[in-house]
Amino acid sequence: MSKPNFDVAIIGTGPGGYVAAIRAAQLGLSVAVIERENLGGICLNWGCIPTKAMLRSSEIYAQMNRAREYGLVAEKVDFDLDAIVSRSRSVAKRLNGGVGYLMKKNKIQVFMGTARLNPPGRVHIASETGEEEISAREIIVASGARARELPGMEADGELIWTYRHALKPPRMPGKLLVIGSGAIGIEFASFYNALGADTTVVELLERILPVEDEEVSAAAKAEFQRQGMTIREQTAVTKIERGKESATATIVMDGKEVSEEFDTVISATGIVGNIEDLGLEEANVETDRGHIVVDEFCRTGVAGISAIGDVAGPPWLAHKASHEGVAVAERIAGLDVHPVRPETIAGCTYCHPQIASVGMTESAAKSTGRDIGVGRFPWSANGKAIALGETEGFVKTVFDRQTGELLGAHMIGADVTELIQGFVVGRQLETTEIDLMHAVFPHPTLSEAMHESVLDAFDRVIHT
Amino acid sequence: MSKPNFDVAIIGTGPGGYVAAIRAAQLGLSVAVIERENLGGICLNWGCIPTKAMLRSSEIYAQMNRAREYGLVAEKVDFDLDAIVSRSRSVAKRLNGGVGYLMKKNKIQVFMGTARLNPPGRVHIASETGEEEISAREIIVASGARARELPGMEADGELIWTYRHALKPPRMPGKLLVIGSGAIGIEFASFYNALGADTTVVELLERILPVEDEEVSAAAKAEFQRQGMTIREQTAVTKIERGKESATATIVMDGKEVSEEFDTVISATGIVGNIEDLGLEEANVETDRGHIVVDEFCRTGVAGISAIGDVAGPPWLAHKASHEGVAVAERIAGLDVHPVRPETIAGCTYCHPQIASVGMTESAAKSTGRDIGVGRFPWSANGKAIALGETEGFVKTVFDRQTGELLGAHMIGADVTELIQGFVVGRQLETTEIDLMHAVFPHPTLSEAMHESVLDAFDRVIHT
Repeated sequence: MSKPNFDVAIIGTGPGGYVAAIRAAQLGLSVAVIERENLGGICLNWGCIPTKAMLRSSEIYAQMNRAREYGLVAEKVDFDLDAIVSRSRSVAKRLNGGVGYLMKKNKIQVFMGTARLNPPGRVHIASETGEEEISAREIIVASGARARELPGMEADGELIWTYRHALKPPRMPGKLLVIGSGAIGIEFASFYNALGADTTVVELLERILPVEDEEVSAAAKAEFQRQGMTIREQTAVTKIERGKESATATIVMDGKEVSEEFDTVISATGIVGNIEDLGLEEANVETDRGHIVVDEFCRTGVAGISAIGDVAGPPWLAHKASHEGVAVAERIAGLDVHPVRPETIAGCTYCHPQIASVGMTESAAKSTGRDIGVGRFPWSANGKAIALGETEGFVKTVFDRQTGELLGAHMIGADVTELIQGFVVGRQLETTEIDLMHAVFPHPTLSEAMHESVLDAFDRVIHT
Repeated sequence: MSKPNFDVAIIGTGPGGYVAAIRAAQLGLSVAVIERENLGGICLNWGCIPTKAMLRSSEIYAQMNRAREYGLVAEKVDFDLDAIVSRSRSVAKRLNGGVGYLMKKNKIQVFMGTARLNPPGRVHIASETGEEEISAREIIVASGARARELPGMEADGELIWTYRHALKPPRMPGKLLVIGSGAIGIEFASFYNALGADTTVVELLERILPVEDEEVSAAAKAEFQRQGMTIREQTAVTKIERGKESATATIVMDGKEVSEEFDTVISATGIVGNIEDLGLEEANVETDRGHIVVDEFCRTGVAGISAIGDVAGPPWLAHKASHEGVAVAERIAGLDVHPVRPETIAGCTYCHPQIASVGMTESAAKSTGRDIGVGRFPWSANGKAIALGETEGFVKTVFDRQTGELLGAHMIGADVTELIQGFVVGRQLETTEIDLMHAVFPHPTLSEAMHESVLDAFDRVIHT
């Protein structure tokens, strides 16, 4: 076989794919990326980034409506949905352009088209302008994921939306049904509710934000209800009948079936990996329930084929994908590689109030049979939170009492998606309670509540 | 000698004093505190907390003026200074009440009055209602500090203000001179400038924010100038002549003397410890240039007398004071004590953009003779910062190339006072670059820029 064209070919350019490409290029490898739609993938173009831009607008809108509380004055406070969306799209476009710049700067060859494995070591690329084939010593599948669609409730962009439609909506929803209360569903519920949509969230499982700590779910529910949302847990949407200008949802709760009309439905019932039409089966790459099966080093079991990010299974988080990208690039370059440790990966939900967590929930920690200590600290006792006027929520920490290990941290409140990294750094360094107690969190900051939560777990809290 | 009334008597109830009191009470000691003015000291009543409340108002005001940028609408945006101040005062009052509650809950006896040492082991207390004396096995002096006043420029509350007047101003300044560019001066300059005061900041040393890294000072200067402030470095105010409605300042720069008129002058030229009238001399407690001399365990050298917080010298930070309070209480209770390590203590300035740092500046690190590596990452390359519309500033990290030790971290930009704790936790755990590189900072967050700055120091940055 002749020398391959590239050391590495990467299918998909979300954060996993493009970070893997850059790291591989830094290590002297020749790299090709194949992208079928937008450089930067869903995350930059239709996910993490544009939603944050929109949520920023709704947050400032909410603050403007509280102007008087802060000694400020504003009349005729309003929003312009088209302008909010257009700002969000331009933020996405700027980042998409940024990835293009990074590809060029790192001398990474970009193929725009649809990739298909053609083993061994070859990738077939179909684009508008024709077909071609490249060869690579190593192939990384980073093809991402998409919204799961329920049968009969497929998005149409008019009455039923996925996140894509919600990011570029045809109109402001009046009466909105959000199906699913994971991060995506809750963020859109939070955004549209803040702008005045009459919002109902339906969750099949026993509580909203089901992967979070139970106390966090309960506090979020109470706060969302206070903001006017209707929250229905242990509830199923079994059918949606599309009318001319509204959809009638059949909702089953407590064994009872009711019908309710909505003008907009956002379907956010989960994620499925993009495993189709990649030639995975022919290449003998194993898949399982919608994702590629990999080991802790992101190896598929087929020599020369790795998979990273959403297509390689949960947690479906961009930061997990990009760290896997770095790890795989380094492995391919022959460096010693450390696997990404799932227990140090934080999850963030950018609703209002924000939610962030890392590690085990209290009940998960209990179920390991450990002797655990739990600390809690409310924002209402934190001076900075009071000064900001943001006193909802709390910080909760879970420790192993025997070893002092920080097992988990759970936060709901202002800015917690930025705060959680302190606990992430701590877990990365395998901190015990002692170092977190001795760490001098600056005053006056929200981060002091993290410290107090640790103190509380050991009956040493100061401010409650 | 008869049994003393208390195990511990604490003079002053700022964060050092009241935290020491609570920790001592938690450890089973009987505690008295003596406060001459407000429970919570300057920090809660006239310092950290009320300034943050005011800055919150000016931040939201600035955001409201950018409404259109975020797709929002507001007419007749304005502020009501009295309402801003009254909110700030009520925040301070709430926290002051909170300290009262904590004293009661922890069964700490509060004496409102002026304390004077009457050695050995006694404190004389004078109050409006009379005089009394208590005895204590251990005495902690936590009497705090106050604004330094320059001769001839003493504050009068009308033309010349200290932080106290600036927190409860008689009027909105029109043309404002701020003397001194440490955290206090810069925060008030930022607040009043944001509300429309024509603001000049004068700094005697070669650059504003002189304790920060040089690049941070330069970036802050450029940003403040963009916001319309006049910044004069290496400049002295040698005289102020008070007129009827304005003050004429004699300003010396580049050897030239000019006169300029201002309607308001805020004097923020430093801090002096409250060492007077405490009976320190008679008790043989050593003082030096306005503060009490202590060792790393906050011992004064006189048995049974400790000193903590601002009165025990720099850094004049509430979080340093409260950690010293915990350490001294634990020492008095007979526990093993770790000294507070100054190199892990962060400094924060809540101007816009915010500034935060911990450890050595680049030039300080260089001057140790170490082989250092410096990383930089601009917010303009961080997706979350772009989504927020807050792209000014950067993160800078300084490493020892031989050991990988993180020597210092310096940040200017949105929210950095909350972000710095991740580096503080890292330094507490003596992190090297490896663990900071492996730590999975969540996406999309500002905190990712901390990660990138570390990567940049080792030529592995992804997004620039």
